[in-house]
Amino acid sequence: MPLVRISLRAGKSADYKRKIGDAVHHALVEAANVPPLDRFQIITEHDETALIYDAQYLDIKRTDDILLIQISFNQGRALEIKKALFARIAGLLHDETGIRKEDVFIGLIEVPPENWSFGNGEAQYAK
Amino acid sequence: MPLVRISLRAGKSADYKRKIGDAVHHALVEAANVPPLDRFQIITEHDETALIYDAQYLDIKRTDDILLIQISFNQGRALEIKKALFARIAGLLHDETGIRKEDVFIGLIEVPPENWSFGNGEAQYAK
Amino acid sequence: MPLVRISLRAGKSADYKRKIGDAVHHALVEAANVPPLDRFQIITEHDETALIYDAQYLDIKRTDDILLIQISFNQGRALEIKKALFARIAGLLHDETGIRKEDVFIGLIEVPPENWSFGNGEAQYAK
Repeated sequence: MPLVRISLRAGKSADYKRKIGDAVHHALVEAANVPPLDRFQIITEHDETALIYDAQYLDIKRTDDILLIQISFNQGRALEIKKALFARIAGLLHDETGIRKEDVFIGLIEVPPENWSFGNGEAQYAK
Repeated sequence: MPLVRISLRAGKSADYKRKIGDAVHHALVEAANVPPLDRFQIITEHDETALIYDAQYLDIKRTDDILLIQISFNQGRALEIKKALFARIAGLLHDETGIRKEDVFIGLIEVPPENWSFGNGEAQYAK
Repeated sequence: MPLVRISLRAGKSADYKRKIGDAVHHALVEAANVPPLDRFQIITEHDETALIYDAQYLDIKRTDDILLIQISFNQGRALEIKKALFARIAGLLHDETGIRKEDVFIGLIEVPPENWSFGNGEAQYAK
């Protein structure tokens, strides 16, 4: 149910992308109670004219290794869960790929559970 | 007003993509009261390192023909409408392209009507 | 904090894309109180089979120069601010690139401030 979009600058290896996707998913499972099999991700690469970021906003130094991660998932997670999720995503990405935590940008979009269909044209999470 | 993003594995024909876009739009018109001319879609193709899905979550068997469909549209549709929309999207996709209904993943994002501009820098749906 | 996705038909120059990104960002700063350094944008190009739009919905005449702009940012902006933002985006895009205002489609997604991490695994905007 999380639908995860990860955008990065082009030129990384398939192995690097795999590790990024793995780290983000494992963080969702560990910190935000996402089922381990509930994994749907889109990773896109963009050249320097197409992925634009500020290199110092909020005094955080960003580089071309930046990841822009947008996660759509169910509403209702408490602030403490969101904070733990952010920390775990950045932590696992750093541990597994060496990416700097400064380069991990995350945005969450929350929707009601009834807004998902996992296949078969049904709303599996609707009450 | 629906802004529809459809992501699929690379390698499909232009005709296949056209049929997919048509089916999703027709389902929105038929099941969710979207005006027939209100069509704005982005279809993106991704290789196997970039579109990642679980092949069995919720015991639904998915294949590389999976479609990840994310629809942003106006809030306020009842659960029954959402259910009818999911069923119609999967049904029309199957009927028109042969895609398995198990391979149709859908997520909805709802926003207030004032959040759209259809051109000219105006908020055409604002009260 | 705005995460901005701009989709256009393929074939434009790097300079054109830069001007588009600049115009959208400047409009956010001028009309919606976004900090000048708070800039994160993804610009994607799509061929005619992949970016689909209606050329006349609401009697607005659109061309292949259409821009589909989706902005995720903090909730709470008043309708008048949203209207001013739409007008400023279309106005600046026209002034800086010559694009027709009819070709500027915009959708907003609003989220709570705690839904962003600008790096370091922290929720910088959380209270």
